[in-house]
Order: sequence, then structure tokens, then C-alpha cells
Amino acid sequence: MTDQKRIVLKPIGYVRTKAVGDEVKDKGRTSQIVIDSEFSEAIEGIDGFSHIFVLFWLNQVSRQPKILKVHPRGREDMPLLGVFATRTKLRPNPIGLTLVELLEVKGNVLFVRGLDAFDGTPVLDVKPFDSWDIAEDAKVPEWWTKLNQERSGRS
Amino acid sequence: MTDQKRIVLKPIGYVRTKAVGDEVKDKGRTSQIVIDSEFSEAIEGIDGFSHIFVLFWLNQVSRQPKILKVHPRGREDMPLLGVFATRTKLRPNPIGLTLVELLEVKGNVLFVRGLDAFDGTPVLDVKPFDSWDIAEDAKVPEWWTKLNQERSGRS
Repeated sequence: MTDQKRIVLKPIGYVRTKAVGDEVKDKGRTSQIVIDSEFSEAIEGIDGFSHIFVLFWLNQVSRQPKILKVHPRGREDMPLLGVFATRTKLRPNPIGLTLVELLEVKGNVLFVRGLDAFDGTPVLDVKPFDSWDIAEDAKVPEWWTKLNQERSGRS
Repeated sequence: MTDQKRIVLKPIGYVRTKAVGDEVKDKGRTSQIVIDSEFSEAIEGIDGFSHIFVLFWLNQVSRQPKILKVHPRGREDMPLLGVFATRTKLRPNPIGLTLVELLEVKGNVLFVRGLDAFDGTPVLDVKPFDSWDIAEDAKVPEWWTKLNQERSGRS
């Protein structure tokens, strides 16, 4: 396969938010992505897009023990699923992926709405959202639909 | 911000495809994601979703020199843009993100359509696609629309 068994990344910036705890899940909340000054040039033109993907490092997650299966949102009435069948933070590589609205760019700061990441979270990448990221006819399992009807928020 | 200046990841599997060169960009092509056996349990239930995001490591990309701006698809008639305003592989952290159709799961192998990754590419994560990943009213800049009208494929 490849000679790279270990992959090393470096944050490109970090999240700034006043939200604490579950408040970060509120999709209406705004927060900021502060891009490190060495990458300032790399955001030029991003303001042409209304939405971006944010890839971030879930640094609050303990990497021990190794967890491969979870109940969505910890609910035991839901099926026990592989972590790759959910959006749980408990993943072999704890990378978060969230689609956010890009409200404004000021200097090296991106103002966004809907980022469910805590204050200080390291950001790994931002990518513009376009029509290739849409699956019109996507199907989800029954448990997902049930959870989603019950409340907002995702697992 | 955080005490983690360097982030270390480990592949969870790799891509298997017969496509070579630009053939990988053909959205109709099928390929396979071979999940490492230690993570087999983690894909249980993923077959309930029709689409998944694949996060992969762009191991073919040289990390030198540091590039912060590019012309989309290398076309000089297009504006010079920050790499974060494009989907170029030349990113500070070369992580690829592609939405693919999940056709079938057999053992620890995911059969997918539309993955633009070369044979042997290390896979970092797979995540189910759901309606939280859709921005209905997304806007893109004029250069993007122009490029997209000219041909299929993305930059």
C-alpha cells in the first residue's frame, strides 16, 4: 500500500467561540476560525463561497480505550453500530467534519455559523462546498430518521 | 490554543482501484475501500446509508515547496486563489474529502462509486452522509461555475 504508516499533521488555525458544553451543537450559533498568519494568503477568494467544510481535530477526545462500536447518542434503545456508521467523536482518527455557513472574512478570521467545535479546537483544513458535495437522493437508516425527528443535533 | 502542535494519524485502510491517472476523476468509476481487519467491526451498520464521505491522505503530493495560492486546474485565465478557496491537493494538510455512493459492503471491503483517489491511497476516516451535510442554497463564485460548465471534474 504505502510507506506512510504514520501521518503527521499540523493545525492551520483554531476555533474561537463563547459557546460551552452542548451549546456548540446549536446550529444557529456563530463562531470564528482563526487562521494562522503563515496561511493568511491561502484563504484568498474563499469569500466567494457561501458554505465551507471544516475539518478539525477532536482534541477533547481521549484516544483510550479503543472503541469500535457505539449506540447513537449513547442511547441503548438504538442499535449498537460501528463507529464508521455514525458521526461519533470516538473514531480511530478523531477528525470532525462539519458543513458551515461562511458569513464573513475579516483578515485571517472566518466568521461561520453552525460549527459544532469547542473553543480552541485545532483546525486541519477548510474546503469550499460546491454541488459535487450533494447527494440528492441519499438514503439513511431508520434509526437515524427516528433520532433526527426526536430532536435537533446529530450523532 | 492547545498543547497538540503535531497530530499523528494512522490509516484505517486503503483504496483499491484499477483506474490510473485521470481515470480516477471519472465519477462513474467504482473502487474499493479495504478496511484494515483491526477496524472491521467499526463498519457495522454503514450499509444503511447510500452515501458516505471518504477522508483520505493525498500521499502522492509532495509537501515541498509550500504553496499557498493556485490557479484552479492550473489555468492561468482563472484567478489566482488561496488553496483553501479551492479543492486542490496542494494543501498544508493534504487530506482529500469526497462524497461517494456506497454500493455494497462485503466483509471488510466497501464498494463505492465516485472516489477520485489512486490505488493504494491511505484512508483516514469514513463518515455517513445525512441531511445535515446539505446546504440547499449554496453559492459559488463565478469562476467555479464557468469551469464546471466547461467540463466535468472539480478543482
